[in-house]
Amino acid sequence: MTRISFDEMKATVKKAFILAGMPEDRAEICARIHTESSRDGVYSHGLNRVERFVDYIHKGWIDVHATPTLDSNLGALEIYNGHMAPGILNAIFAMNRATEIAEKNGVGLVSLNNTTHWMRGGAYGWLAAEKGYIGICWTNTESCMPAWGATSGGIGNNPFIMAVPRKEGHLVLDMAMSLYSYGKLQVTRLKNQKLPYPGGFDTNGVLTDDPGAIEESRRILPMGFWKGSGFAILLDVLASLLSGGLSTAAIDKFDKGSCGSCCQVFIAINPLKINTQELIDKVLSETITQIKTSVPVTENSEIFYPGEQSFKTRHENLAIGIPVDDGVWAKVKELADMKG
Amino acid sequence: MTRISFDEMKATVKKAFILAGMPEDRAEICARIHTESSRDGVYSHGLNRVERFVDYIHKGWIDVHATPTLDSNLGALEIYNGHMAPGILNAIFAMNRATEIAEKNGVGLVSLNNTTHWMRGGAYGWLAAEKGYIGICWTNTESCMPAWGATSGGIGNNPFIMAVPRKEGHLVLDMAMSLYSYGKLQVTRLKNQKLPYPGGFDTNGVLTDDPGAIEESRRILPMGFWKGSGFAILLDVLASLLSGGLSTAAIDKFDKGSCGSCCQVFIAINPLKINTQELIDKVLSETITQIKTSVPVTENSEIFYPGEQSFKTRHENLAIGIPVDDGVWAKVKELADMKG
Repeated sequence: MTRISFDEMKATVKKAFILAGMPEDRAEICARIHTESSRDGVYSHGLNRVERFVDYIHKGWIDVHATPTLDSNLGALEIYNGHMAPGILNAIFAMNRATEIAEKNGVGLVSLNNTTHWMRGGAYGWLAAEKGYIGICWTNTESCMPAWGATSGGIGNNPFIMAVPRKEGHLVLDMAMSLYSYGKLQVTRLKNQKLPYPGGFDTNGVLTDDPGAIEESRRILPMGFWKGSGFAILLDVLASLLSGGLSTAAIDKFDKGSCGSCCQVFIAINPLKINTQELIDKVLSETITQIKTSVPVTENSEIFYPGEQSFKTRHENLAIGIPVDDGVWAKVKELADMKG
Repeated sequence: MTRISFDEMKATVKKAFILAGMPEDRAEICARIHTESSRDGVYSHGLNRVERFVDYIHKGWIDVHATPTLDSNLGALEIYNGHMAPGILNAIFAMNRATEIAEKNGVGLVSLNNTTHWMRGGAYGWLAAEKGYIGICWTNTESCMPAWGATSGGIGNNPFIMAVPRKEGHLVLDMAMSLYSYGKLQVTRLKNQKLPYPGGFDTNGVLTDDPGAIEESRRILPMGFWKGSGFAILLDVLASLLSGGLSTAAIDKFDKGSCGSCCQVFIAINPLKINTQELIDKVLSETITQIKTSVPVTENSEIFYPGEQSFKTRHENLAIGIPVDDGVWAKVKELADMKG
């Protein structure tokens, strides 16, 4: 397996983005987020997504020069039009703005309409936590999963993120509404393996752990069956209503790539406005202790808090390089005009 | 099956609460919420919970006279001490207060520390939606479920609610973090049936749809496996940090009944401050249409939006009476001094 250093990956991705027409300062930020996603083990939305992002720029589905403009200000809630700017830049703006509002009002909520794919949603949870804020955010998407009770796609695989700052390692939950991603199905199938747990229905409507059978039926399973289905519907409707933007059904019709003109919600709160650092530390410490001292499934196995594994992967990948798929890496180098 | 009219049930429950020491006006509200939960099909947290609630009053674990007091006001975020008052009264106060804050600030967030069991969490989502508000709320609880990777309990089955007002029927998601409740396991076992899908691990660590085997192991399954586990942890930590109250680990030690001195979060937003009614109707209508016109799993089967089935049960139970377990009903009548 090839491993690439963080700096080399970021510089290469940045060059690809500049060649695609992005101003240098914006390419720097977008390249950093893509590289950080791969660094943390979220390869699907890091390096692996660079080619598609560049393709969207060329198709005119992303405006590399646009910046968000305020639609309305309700006090602790501000609504912005993202003008199809790069989703990463819009999302960073929105979470940062939410933290500013939170300083004045206790809580800050920023919503974005007409934005584009934010890549790894967790990035904005980590951003809030790094600044010392509790962060909650979600996005709606095009449909790619059947609602519970249906065999045809109708709901989005909308990710939902919750982050809590903690000096020994932030707690970050970053979950999509499907139990497994299509990426996970593909990777598992290519290894001739089964999924750890059933991840969808086959074309006969039988629950299966065979990834190929789910790719064929397109009946990928919402996490928790009816629960993930209902959650996906509410996240979609709320993102749309809180921003005045497109719903999943409307994004499907708009049809400008994955998450083209989607809506996002960002909530920030400063926990130090509510509690002393001592009380915060106590709550986090007793919670992590309670989880960590549970009886593990197998002797010597470990129980992780949300975000812990990303944090470990990060340190490993920073130390020994970020693993890349050779084909993907060659393609990104080609886009950066650094062939061979 | 015995069916009781809404009015008879409410009057009986109210009498039981008054006899337990509640002032008449407070008993009226609590009896209404319990009865509405049974009316909507959530029997476990309606009539079936009356006996335990009265027991908690007698034990001094609920203060029937207490009212919430403001701990701090950060603008759009207000924090209250619930003083172990009846959870229903505290939660109604908090969601109503969140809607008032939202009128001034766009979004309102109210958190409660030191409160008690709110019974059916969905009640406060329906409350917000009935007033025309988007409502989001959650609570932490004592631990009753193993974290992912553990065999012993350590995390709470914290319910999470999202509600959106809609004139033809509100969208209300009301989900606990376990796939099935212990109540569902018991009911299914008593019928000698299997669960629709595996709901936990047996004592050998094998995923099973046998409810009795899960009751024995206590290894009830978080919805979406690791996802529901992580979500439960974040909901707990956020409820505690946003209110300055007890975490699940601390509630376990406090040990004054289910949800004794728990924390809750209530968020409200008026969608009409953001969109016209016409735009709201469009988003809701296109979303419901997309779901409803998906291909159903079996011919003639129906695909429901979150809240739709509660709404249907409500109309049926109002028309023909609310079904009750005869033993439970006899006990509540006894508590109301209406034996025989």
